[in-house]
Amino acid sequence: MFSYRQLFDFTQEVFIKMGCPPDDAKLATEVLLEADLRGVDSHGVARLSGYVRLWEAGRINVKPNIRIVHETPSTATIDGDAGLGLVVAPRAMDIAIAKAERVGTGWVSVKNSNHYGIAGYHAMQALARDMIGISMTNASPLVAPTFSTERMLGTNPIAVAIPTGHQPPFVADLATAAAANGKLEILQRKEKKAPTGWIQTSTGEGTRDAHALKEGGALLPLGSDRLHGSHKGYALSSVVDIFSAVLSGANYGPWVPPFVSFLPVAENLVGEGIGHFMGAMRVDAFRPADEFKQHMDNWIATFRNAKVKKGQKAVLIPGDPEREITATRLKKGIPLLAPVQRDLEELGKRFSVQF
Amino acid sequence: MFSYRQLFDFTQEVFIKMGCPPDDAKLATEVLLEADLRGVDSHGVARLSGYVRLWEAGRINVKPNIRIVHETPSTATIDGDAGLGLVVAPRAMDIAIAKAERVGTGWVSVKNSNHYGIAGYHAMQALARDMIGISMTNASPLVAPTFSTERMLGTNPIAVAIPTGHQPPFVADLATAAAANGKLEILQRKEKKAPTGWIQTSTGEGTRDAHALKEGGALLPLGSDRLHGSHKGYALSSVVDIFSAVLSGANYGPWVPPFVSFLPVAENLVGEGIGHFMGAMRVDAFRPADEFKQHMDNWIATFRNAKVKKGQKAVLIPGDPEREITATRLKKGIPLLAPVQRDLEELGKRFSVQF
Repeated sequence: MFSYRQLFDFTQEVFIKMGCPPDDAKLATEVLLEADLRGVDSHGVARLSGYVRLWEAGRINVKPNIRIVHETPSTATIDGDAGLGLVVAPRAMDIAIAKAERVGTGWVSVKNSNHYGIAGYHAMQALARDMIGISMTNASPLVAPTFSTERMLGTNPIAVAIPTGHQPPFVADLATAAAANGKLEILQRKEKKAPTGWIQTSTGEGTRDAHALKEGGALLPLGSDRLHGSHKGYALSSVVDIFSAVLSGANYGPWVPPFVSFLPVAENLVGEGIGHFMGAMRVDAFRPADEFKQHMDNWIATFRNAKVKKGQKAVLIPGDPEREITATRLKKGIPLLAPVQRDLEELGKRFSVQF
Repeated sequence: MFSYRQLFDFTQEVFIKMGCPPDDAKLATEVLLEADLRGVDSHGVARLSGYVRLWEAGRINVKPNIRIVHETPSTATIDGDAGLGLVVAPRAMDIAIAKAERVGTGWVSVKNSNHYGIAGYHAMQALARDMIGISMTNASPLVAPTFSTERMLGTNPIAVAIPTGHQPPFVADLATAAAANGKLEILQRKEKKAPTGWIQTSTGEGTRDAHALKEGGALLPLGSDRLHGSHKGYALSSVVDIFSAVLSGANYGPWVPPFVSFLPVAENLVGEGIGHFMGAMRVDAFRPADEFKQHMDNWIATFRNAKVKKGQKAVLIPGDPEREITATRLKKGIPLLAPVQRDLEELGKRFSVQF
C-alpha cells in the first residue's frame, strides 16, 4: 500500500525532472492520481512511465504554449502545443468555465494534445462553480464499428458532473465501448477469459480470448452486438471523436496517435495530436441554483431508494462507487501491482527520485 | 401503402380540427410524419390518436403561449404551456439556433411540454445553418436502473446531427435503452419472443416475454446488464432526464407523465409536464465551416470504407438506414399496419376528415 502523499510527491518530482514547470507538474500529478484514488488503476501512476516514454520519443512538449486559436463568446478552439493532456485539458476546462461565467455556457474543443487521464476529473472541475461539467476525448483506435472488423475508434469516454445540494455530486464517467481496455488488461494479467460481448477476433467473430487484440481483434462498442444496440455505442463514440477532433483539427478515427510509444504514429495524419471536448454550463443559466440543487438532491434520493433486485445491495448513483474507493484509499492507501511498482522504481532510478 | 402527401393532409387537418393554429398544425404534422418517413413507425401517425386522447383528457393545450422564462446569451429555459411537444420542441430549437448565431452556441431546456416525436427531427433543424444540432427528451418511466426492479427512466433518446460537405449528414438518434419500446410493441403484435437482454420481469429476472412490461417488468438500459455496461446506459439516460427536466423544472424520473391518456399522472408532481433539452453549435465557432465539412466528408468516407465483417454488406454511418427508408417511402409510399389504419379511420370519422 502506498499513501496518496507518497505517490503524489514522487510523480510530481518525475514531471519536474522531465522539465515541466512546477505548476504544470503539480496539476498533471493531481489529474493522474485522481484515477488511482477513484479506482481507475489503468489510468493512474501505472501510466506514468508511458508518458515518460512518449516524452523520450519527442511526442510530448513539457513547456507547451497552450493557446486559443479560434473563439466566440461561448466557444474556443485550443492548440495544446503537444503538451501533456493532463495539463492541456484542465486549462481548456478553465476556459470553458470562464466563458460560462460570462455567457451561461462554455465549450472548448482541443487539438494537438495527448492522453488526458480520466475524463471525470475534468468534468468535476465545474462543480465548485455550480456548473455542470462535460468532458470527452478521443483515443487510439481499439474499437470496431458495428459490422466492421477494423479498429477505428478509441474507447472514447464521456464524463458528466452535475452539482447537488446535500447529496454528493452526480458524476458519470463512461467509456463508449462495452468494456474499457483497462478491464481487459486486468484479465490478460490474470490469464482469465473475457466475458462474451467485449471483444471480437480479427475476422469479427465473438471471442472470450482476452489477448485477441494482439492478433488483430477489436473491442466492441457499448451494446456489444447489433441486436443489443452496438450501433448506439458506435454512434456515441463517433460523436465523441467528431466533437474532440473534427471540430478542433486533431486526428480522428484510425489516425489518432497511439498512447504507447512503441507503436508508430499513422502516416498522412489528418490533424494534430489527439483531441478533447470540454463543456461547462452554469445551472443558474437555466433556473436558480438553489432550486436546481434541491431537485437534484430529490432526484438522487429517489433513485437511490428505488426497489433493489434480490441479491444486490443498492441502486447506485453514478459516482457512488468511485467516491467509496476514494475514501478507502485516502485512509488505507493505494495498492499497486508488482509490475507497476517495478516500473516506478525504474523511473525513480532513471530520474534520481526516491520511490 | 399511403402517400406522404395523403397522410400529411389528413394529419394536418386533424390538428386543425383539434384547434391548433394553422402554422402549428403544419409544423406538428411535419415532425410527426418525419418518423414515418424515417421508418420509426412507433413515433409517427400511429401516435396521432394518442395525442388526440391526451387533448381530450385536457392534458394538451392546442393554443400554447410558448415563452422564455429564464435566459442568458447562450441559454434559455422555455415554458411550453402544455403545448404539443411536436410544436414546442421546434420552437425551442429555433431559440437555440438564434442564440448560436449570436454567441456560437445555444442551449435550451424545456418544461411543461409533451411527447415531441423523434429526437432526430429537432437535431436536424440545425444542419441547414451549418450547425451541429443536439436534441434529447425524457419520457414516461419504462426502464429500470442497473440493480433495480423499478421503472424509473424513459427510453430517453439522444440525437446528434452533424453537417457535412458532399456526404449526407451524420444523424445519430438513439434510445438509451437496449431497445426502444416501439421494437417491443412490434414483437407483442406478432406474438414473438424478445431477445434476451431487452427486458426483465417484475423481480428483475431476465425474460424473453415481450409482454413482461404489462406484469410489472421493465426495459433494460443500453448495455443490458452490469457486465456489459448497463450502468453506462443508465447513466446516459439519467443525464438526459436531468438536462431535460431538472434544469428546466419539468417532471423527472418516475414522475414523468405517461403518454397514454388511460394511465394516471403521478401524484405530488415535482415539475410541469415533460422536459426536453436542445443544443445548437455553429461549426464555425470552432474552425472555418468549409474545413470542418471537408474533414467530416473524410471521416464518413473512411468509416464507410472500413473492412466489413463476413455476412454483412457495409459499415453504416449513423443516419444511413433512415435516409434509405425515407427515399423508398417517398417513392413507394408509407405502409401502415391494419390497427393503425382503423385508428386513423376512426379519427377521420370523429373529426369529419376524409381518410
